[in-house]
Amino acid sequence: MMERGKLIVVSAPSGCGKGTILGRVLEDKARFYYSVSETTRKPREGEIDGVHYRFLTQEDFKTKIAEDAFLEYAQYCDNFYGTLSAPIEEHLSQGQDVILEIEVQGAMQIREKRPDAHFIFIAPPSLETLRERLVGRGTEPLDVIEKRVKQAESELTCRSAYDYCVVNDDLDTAVADFLSVVRAIELRVE
Amino acid sequence: MMERGKLIVVSAPSGCGKGTILGRVLEDKARFYYSVSETTRKPREGEIDGVHYRFLTQEDFKTKIAEDAFLEYAQYCDNFYGTLSAPIEEHLSQGQDVILEIEVQGAMQIREKRPDAHFIFIAPPSLETLRERLVGRGTEPLDVIEKRVKQAESELTCRSAYDYCVVNDDLDTAVADFLSVVRAIELRVE
Repeated sequence: MMERGKLIVVSAPSGCGKGTILGRVLEDKARFYYSVSETTRKPREGEIDGVHYRFLTQEDFKTKIAEDAFLEYAQYCDNFYGTLSAPIEEHLSQGQDVILEIEVQGAMQIREKRPDAHFIFIAPPSLETLRERLVGRGTEPLDVIEKRVKQAESELTCRSAYDYCVVNDDLDTAVADFLSVVRAIELRVE
Repeated sequence: MMERGKLIVVSAPSGCGKGTILGRVLEDKARFYYSVSETTRKPREGEIDGVHYRFLTQEDFKTKIAEDAFLEYAQYCDNFYGTLSAPIEEHLSQGQDVILEIEVQGAMQIREKRPDAHFIFIAPPSLETLRERLVGRGTEPLDVIEKRVKQAESELTCRSAYDYCVVNDDLDTAVADFLSVVRAIELRVE
């Protein structure tokens, strides 16, 4: 019998390099399935249906809510965002680890519903480093950066609700640490 | 402030290659402290006081029991065996991970007393493989080997009381898995 995969929930304040770390980890496509979220918001330029999100109509989304099809969902600014249970189950039962990238509130919903899930938080080495990185990127004005840093500060207080915390100081170390944690999760006695 | 090390308890049925795995892991002397047990039994040939055991008189051992100095202890065939709390605390506070190799009953005593401890079980890929390895070693008669395999079978049922299980099929993989688990323990949110 094939061993079930593990459900791994990942959160990080923006600017922590979560995307870069996950990009490296997810190169192993046989081992990992990256869970794609559903949303009712319109696709932005360059976003591909089924890759960045699965784009649904409000009506379809509400039908799925009524069918209890979501592991978690939330509404922001008139748009719905959610994670369907069925694709996750399908890949877990095929023995793949499912990586679910989600913000803190969504993660806490999953914590309540799925005692089999494991939670990894990715953190910046410090708020000062985070600020420097965002300034260095040069893509956002300073007042937006200050908002992001404030937001990160508040999200960092949620770190204690996670099982593991990977600090992204050096990228190679962070990727290695992330993979160590995933391997340990695979070796966890349930 | 220096971060405290982690207390890591390791058990394995005999013949699982625990000694070989730990030998490789413990090469990193700055990172790990291997906890040496106290005993009242006489040293065997080649055993060095302070390396294999710290050898105590019955009187000294009983005094330490009275002082509540042991994290765990047990009596087998008129001899006492135990683990002192003080050296463990000392190394943890210096930021070293403490590796404590102990049989299942001792591990379960520690589980009750130390909620901060982490528990790794090392298992053979199968009882059949274990039997083949013990026969291949050629150091023991077949009836002793059968006893060891029976013992391993009973110890394997305790695996579910541990946090992680590393299966020693291929030695290099087992060492890498063990180190992944240790790293994940270091990254655990307490």
